[in-house]
Amino acid sequence: MLPPADLLASRHLTVRRALETLGLVRLLVTRLPNVRWLTGFDGSSGEVLIEPDRVVLIVDGRYVESAEALACHAGDVIRVERVEQTHDETLATLIAGSTAPVGFEAADLSVARHLWFQASLTGRGWDAGRLRPTADVVESGRIVKDSWELDLLREGGARLSAVTLGVLADLRPGVTETSVAQAVEAGLRRAGFDGPAFDTIVASGPRAALPHGRASGRPIGRGELVVLDLGGIYGGYCVDLTRTIALGDPGPDARAWHAAVLEAQSAAIAAVAPGRTPHDIDRAARQVLDTHGLGPRFTHGTGHGLGLEVHEAPRVGPPRADAAGVPMTGTARLPDHLVPGMVFTIEPGVYVPGRGGVRIEDDVLVTVSGVEVLTNVPRTLVLD
Amino acid sequence: MLPPADLLASRHLTVRRALETLGLVRLLVTRLPNVRWLTGFDGSSGEVLIEPDRVVLIVDGRYVESAEALACHAGDVIRVERVEQTHDETLATLIAGSTAPVGFEAADLSVARHLWFQASLTGRGWDAGRLRPTADVVESGRIVKDSWELDLLREGGARLSAVTLGVLADLRPGVTETSVAQAVEAGLRRAGFDGPAFDTIVASGPRAALPHGRASGRPIGRGELVVLDLGGIYGGYCVDLTRTIALGDPGPDARAWHAAVLEAQSAAIAAVAPGRTPHDIDRAARQVLDTHGLGPRFTHGTGHGLGLEVHEAPRVGPPRADAAGVPMTGTARLPDHLVPGMVFTIEPGVYVPGRGGVRIEDDVLVTVSGVEVLTNVPRTLVLD
Repeated sequence: MLPPADLLASRHLTVRRALETLGLVRLLVTRLPNVRWLTGFDGSSGEVLIEPDRVVLIVDGRYVESAEALACHAGDVIRVERVEQTHDETLATLIAGSTAPVGFEAADLSVARHLWFQASLTGRGWDAGRLRPTADVVESGRIVKDSWELDLLREGGARLSAVTLGVLADLRPGVTETSVAQAVEAGLRRAGFDGPAFDTIVASGPRAALPHGRASGRPIGRGELVVLDLGGIYGGYCVDLTRTIALGDPGPDARAWHAAVLEAQSAAIAAVAPGRTPHDIDRAARQVLDTHGLGPRFTHGTGHGLGLEVHEAPRVGPPRADAAGVPMTGTARLPDHLVPGMVFTIEPGVYVPGRGGVRIEDDVLVTVSGVEVLTNVPRTLVLD
Repeated sequence: MLPPADLLASRHLTVRRALETLGLVRLLVTRLPNVRWLTGFDGSSGEVLIEPDRVVLIVDGRYVESAEALACHAGDVIRVERVEQTHDETLATLIAGSTAPVGFEAADLSVARHLWFQASLTGRGWDAGRLRPTADVVESGRIVKDSWELDLLREGGARLSAVTLGVLADLRPGVTETSVAQAVEAGLRRAGFDGPAFDTIVASGPRAALPHGRASGRPIGRGELVVLDLGGIYGGYCVDLTRTIALGDPGPDARAWHAAVLEAQSAAIAAVAPGRTPHDIDRAARQVLDTHGLGPRFTHGTGHGLGLEVHEAPRVGPPRADAAGVPMTGTARLPDHLVPGMVFTIEPGVYVPGRGGVRIEDDVLVTVSGVEVLTNVPRTLVLD
């Protein structure tokens, strides 16, 4: 499944505009999901060099055939460059082919690779000071999904919901967490997913207090809280869903936690609209849990963006103080506010160590008029 | 499954010795497989700071419970530090707690994170020049597996072989590549693997010429070459196996390619012994293919190390010229020669674009007396 050629061209335009605001016309893209978004290339190794007149996709011998097919599909906007020695040798040769400064992705390029480029380019008589750290250039385009991406995310959300319904319907006391995880993964394959987006979380009884409790050999008991958090990759795009259920009455405390989390999630979903900020959405969930005295039990952010990565922008959480020290002048601007086309999770939770926990998660799309929920599974606590 | 406490302590000792050769006593470990090797921690986010008197494991709220359990298991050699704001804020506070220089993993730490640490530490009055790039410090320990790791790799190799035998026995003309990949993944789960080590490769007919051809919807035809390359993670450790088969006679050229690759692989396995170099092993395979006129069709290295990562040291390939430009003084020495306890794949291949390809891969352990092959599946071409 390849993005249509006109959408690829439109993505290139978006990124070139973001680059221009940083005073650049060339960008070395080393982050694989960014490479994929710009070209459709989904191999395990490859880079893009954005040049003023073309987008160069750099791959080694293993991927030349499939990369050429992509380039052909994209018309003449993508050119494939084959690696002869190493990727970085090829990249250094391309970079040194023009004197124009080159931005690089500072959050992806390692210090070791950067030192190598500096030495190699200097050795070629290229002023390594023209290698400029940047941040969020491609991400500033990826944060708003285009129509092709939204089709995949909608379809992925619908299929993930169907898989979840099937797994919940088969749940019986005595089955182990691992066998539930296996049923999820078999279900994802049958439903046409590329694979799971992450290790399926099945956390029952006291393990439900572990926000990231991978499936264990523990059998699920009657009346226990079970957190089931599953994700699938559909056509390259990640969707993510959590339900917390109990096979039989889990008791008054657990019922109260579930009711509070459900109320918090509903409030956060209702708060989604263009112009609001991700922090507003987080605050909506947090305030509800605070009123129930459960604020301190909500130990993570409310959500995260979905797309080619299962965690991407926007981060839906409280404002962070830590960005202050970053001396990065080459940072592209991510929208502060919600914009139609953003897709993210809303997943408040409550965790009580030693006793259990509850999390409820759905995926939402910001629309012109407000919000569209992409996942659809009853948020019932007690299954009989 | 946690490494025994005495082996953890022994790993720490190995790394401290490697650090000492670089004139350092402190190391910031950000690379997750290295964090896991040093502590047993297998979460998705965490760091280690090696201090002269202890190993500090830094985790956020999600992982405090499981990290404390690890530390308890390890005796008092590991101390858990909980992240309050962000991981890097916590790390900067710990680093600034002593004036001793701190090595960091230059191949893992991004330029952006490095810039942040420089600014943050300078802001705390700590001379950021004492942040020293290093390479291969923990890797120089990981390259030789200890007895606990070898048990897992041996067991993983045996189980992966059983899964492969089962999948090959069920192969029939007309089944799609995807359904074979699904059978592999179901088999891995049933056999007790944590999951696949990579996307299963099933490449049939002309697609067999793609060294990394992920499974497609293509039905497998009679007399076609089928490259099946599967990997599993067992107790955290990766094993990897490839067979190339045909359902019915694939014709004289394909038979000749298979015979040559088999001969090349056997020669490379026979060459494994302590004191040889990885390049010797690669040359043994390459020379056989050269004598068959197939050298130019062998477009990748002969193998790669296996362990917590599916591609790790040693690299089994021709010597590389590209290391020349790297100005890294803080590089720990990886052994030049094979040492008992190293585990890697041997996987020569031949690829003929448009027509097909053959690859045969097994996992080997360097022993005191020579070699132990960890995988065991007949290398027969034609299945009836």
